[in-house]
Amino acid sequence: MIRTIEWTGSSVLLLDQTRLPRSVQYVEVRTPLRMAEAISAMEVRGAPLIGVAAAYGMALSGIARKGELLGIEQDGAVLRAARPTATNLSWAVDEQLRAARAAAKGGPLAVTEALIENAMRIHKEDADINRRIGEHLLTLLKPGMGVLTHCNAGALATTAYGTATAPFYLAKERGIPLRIYADETRPRLQGASLTAFELFEAGMDVTLICDNMAAVLMQKGRIDAVITGCDRVARNGDAANKIGTFSVSILAKHFGIPLYIAAPGPTIDFCCPTGADIPIEERDGDEIRRICGVLVAPKGVPVYNPSFDVTPAEHIAAIVTERGIAYPPFEKNLCALYGVQP
Amino acid sequence: MIRTIEWTGSSVLLLDQTRLPRSVQYVEVRTPLRMAEAISAMEVRGAPLIGVAAAYGMALSGIARKGELLGIEQDGAVLRAARPTATNLSWAVDEQLRAARAAAKGGPLAVTEALIENAMRIHKEDADINRRIGEHLLTLLKPGMGVLTHCNAGALATTAYGTATAPFYLAKERGIPLRIYADETRPRLQGASLTAFELFEAGMDVTLICDNMAAVLMQKGRIDAVITGCDRVARNGDAANKIGTFSVSILAKHFGIPLYIAAPGPTIDFCCPTGADIPIEERDGDEIRRICGVLVAPKGVPVYNPSFDVTPAEHIAAIVTERGIAYPPFEKNLCALYGVQP
Repeated sequence: MIRTIEWTGSSVLLLDQTRLPRSVQYVEVRTPLRMAEAISAMEVRGAPLIGVAAAYGMALSGIARKGELLGIEQDGAVLRAARPTATNLSWAVDEQLRAARAAAKGGPLAVTEALIENAMRIHKEDADINRRIGEHLLTLLKPGMGVLTHCNAGALATTAYGTATAPFYLAKERGIPLRIYADETRPRLQGASLTAFELFEAGMDVTLICDNMAAVLMQKGRIDAVITGCDRVARNGDAANKIGTFSVSILAKHFGIPLYIAAPGPTIDFCCPTGADIPIEERDGDEIRRICGVLVAPKGVPVYNPSFDVTPAEHIAAIVTERGIAYPPFEKNLCALYGVQP
Repeated sequence: MIRTIEWTGSSVLLLDQTRLPRSVQYVEVRTPLRMAEAISAMEVRGAPLIGVAAAYGMALSGIARKGELLGIEQDGAVLRAARPTATNLSWAVDEQLRAARAAAKGGPLAVTEALIENAMRIHKEDADINRRIGEHLLTLLKPGMGVLTHCNAGALATTAYGTATAPFYLAKERGIPLRIYADETRPRLQGASLTAFELFEAGMDVTLICDNMAAVLMQKGRIDAVITGCDRVARNGDAANKIGTFSVSILAKHFGIPLYIAAPGPTIDFCCPTGADIPIEERDGDEIRRICGVLVAPKGVPVYNPSFDVTPAEHIAAIVTERGIAYPPFEKNLCALYGVQP
């Protein structure tokens, strides 16, 4: 499986995902500000992977700031602001600030060491989470089923099997046949460039479609389940994910097809009551006007380009976490899984 | 308004729509086979315009074949096969064959003359149809409304105001404000390259979105009506149109937003009982794998690429023709408008 991120001891190697599927290239990130830039420019993307990248960004800050807390906190603020929607980003920064503060009494060197060790722990945990989510999701599928996924919550969005794609990798290992359909996911085409790329490379039965073709496949009975990742789950089960997920959820509801959200713990924001409280990033209009640098629309035409949308809890059949499957009512069942006061 | 097709007396000038919005270039078509190629390669596209182009293709056949019926019939078969879904294409070929046969007793020169005259008549009729459809559609809109359209059933798909876009041009002329949203319409991006292009050029309030963003706009209450064209309407009101229209129809139904289909007479196929009887063209997978020549997905990844889908009659609020507005039940009301035995 392709590696997305690697800690060298003093820097981070990142797979540059803006170059896929045409070329597999790594960039070396040596400073927290360069890491914030890589997150913002989507060289590294996918909510869980952004979390791991931010954790390493904080480790780089520990080195650069020589364990000095005030500077590390400043770098944390810059990293946190790199993208607004994924909660994993601020979760990882918070985890690191907590570790740094806890180590502060041991002196600056202890702070830097704690940041590096904690980043490696967050990295390892992500891989464990992937496998456990995959096992739970696999119990919801049957051999031969057709599964639609949107955007990329795959190996390329994480550090191992992915979240939404984890059951596909496990099924492949165990010889369980599945037919996977990948929405290309405009405007940035992560479904085409990333999901179709990684699943096709892994030898899976994957078919690429445009986002507007899913309804026809559902009508033909070719889709038995939809599985997507998410960037943030609110306490009530509303889930923010890549733009287009809400649209797919309406189609799935229309056809009576279950939609499962793969949600690692760090993606669940118990402080966020509902989807209405999730900030939605709007990105530059040229993401729509231009594709691969070529102008496909009139220059300067107004564009609406929200990067995410919120799928309401009532369109979601189950939220699948590393701790188990939460069915509605989500607030009660998610709180129970994570030991949070409802 | 931009001209899409022009008869020179011995050839046809076609606006090459594959070059929009980057360059406005005309190609000169001198033979019926070159016209079939232009239709197949989508240099000329849009159901009504394909009909006019095919009619001129038959006029070119009349000249090339020196009015000899057998050869003209052969060229008609080639033109008819250029694209399978739009009924305007075979309608225009049939109209021309009828005109040619009727003129045959007057000799070969009369056949050629009849084909040329009839093509010019079909051309002029299309422009009249546009304006009348626009007037009827405008009665369904109110000032300030937000209207979503999909693909291009615009001036570029016809010879004048377009069909779905005709009320936008009329509203603009009369100072009635409308907010237009154009789906970019993957894979060929006709919404971005053609609809956004022609409406932006005409100074309208148009916003371009990706196909997967319409649901969010509907949820925000920004869309009051959906208007699309169609490639073929079955007798029961099922309407084949560009891929993605079915998806939009499900979203519109979910949000209680009316969907209007702009359908010129030649698009209504009274011999076709239901949408299940409409052949759906599947196009090359590279239309999805590559954009503007750049590979955006893994080479050779399987692709599903239907060019059209069928919106069931029950998702359609009204079918708007040049003869008036048909509400459900469509079979009865369309037959009444066109004087066809129900």
